[in-house]
Amino acid sequence: MTAPRISDSALRRLSHYLRFLEAFEAAGRETVSSEELAERGGTTSAQVRKDLSHFGSFGKRGLGYPVPELRSRLAGILGVGRRWNVALAGAGKLGAALHAYDGFRRRGFHVVAVFDSDPRKIGRRWGPLTVEDVARLATSAREKAVEIGIVVTPADAAQEVADAMVDAGITAILNFAPAKLVLPENVSLRDVNLAIELEALCFALTHEGWIVGR
Amino acid sequence: MTAPRISDSALRRLSHYLRFLEAFEAAGRETVSSEELAERGGTTSAQVRKDLSHFGSFGKRGLGYPVPELRSRLAGILGVGRRWNVALAGAGKLGAALHAYDGFRRRGFHVVAVFDSDPRKIGRRWGPLTVEDVARLATSAREKAVEIGIVVTPADAAQEVADAMVDAGITAILNFAPAKLVLPENVSLRDVNLAIELEALCFALTHEGWIVGR
Repeated sequence: MTAPRISDSALRRLSHYLRFLEAFEAAGRETVSSEELAERGGTTSAQVRKDLSHFGSFGKRGLGYPVPELRSRLAGILGVGRRWNVALAGAGKLGAALHAYDGFRRRGFHVVAVFDSDPRKIGRRWGPLTVEDVARLATSAREKAVEIGIVVTPADAAQEVADAMVDAGITAILNFAPAKLVLPENVSLRDVNLAIELEALCFALTHEGWIVGR
Repeated sequence: MTAPRISDSALRRLSHYLRFLEAFEAAGRETVSSEELAERGGTTSAQVRKDLSHFGSFGKRGLGYPVPELRSRLAGILGVGRRWNVALAGAGKLGAALHAYDGFRRRGFHVVAVFDSDPRKIGRRWGPLTVEDVARLATSAREKAVEIGIVVTPADAAQEVADAMVDAGITAILNFAPAKLVLPENVSLRDVNLAIELEALCFALTHEGWIVGR
């Protein structure tokens, strides 16, 4: 049996559909058509139907999708609506911003541990948390049942921290450090490289008329 | 004449090659092969040569690429190595983290203006800057020759702020708000949606064995 497969872009579209459905549900709408979802998502209704078809059949032809049901099934598909334990490695400004980010908590992401290697930061209080020595990451993250690790260290510390996360049994890592992490195959990795995003904008500013594809 | 085109993934690879070349140059290396760039970038040497071929010919067959020259030409291609004026809309924690982010300044991105709509934040000092009323964005960003706008507002304020940026003549926007911005065709947009990145990780955690393509 081959592993089922979903493209990165389809996955992003599902996250967007979920947000539209939440807004429709809050507005009291009972049904929504694939055309409406497509229009809000900047795609086609055929694409919407194809994206959803990965996960079974939804709605009835001609009647549209029932909003609360599709919202709830999509949330389940994306793993949203339950609590996820998150650890932050890197107690700098970006780490603090992520820790305070409402959007995370609202989606069920709870930071349960913060680590740093700087003796001046270790022991500091972060709300209910205390910044821990990164040397304790593998042990402490396992004790706290951390499922998702966020790397916000400088580039040269990122691989070591990610290795400790893997040792702690973490299989999902969001990496903000400008470093290419090498991880076991069973670990999911998402890179958010802010400088690279800005460089892509600079490229567009420098090369007017070029089309940057997606 | 059709507009030249580059894929988003090729553009990201160029940013990565530039980082590798900077490291090689700092280590005193004079030449580098496409194989070495490929290995560090997790791609093939044919892909490296193809990515670079968009911008003319580099290096000599069999001799590899001269490191300082390729580094400097890539920096020029990406628009790195000059100063870019950046405005932040949203003086919250994420905005503060971006303002303080060393990685930006080192790449030439200078935050020259910060805007917010909250009267408690307007007038506050941010280092050498003062948080300005977002109602002044279109005027002030134009006066300050802002080239890149970063949106770190809540979702429901994002479109209005982006419209003001466009009014200020800004043609490159990095959007952190979980909102789908509608912008004129000549404006480049990059979305960084942290909750969506985390949801993609949750999907992988929830659907063990699924392959999420890139």
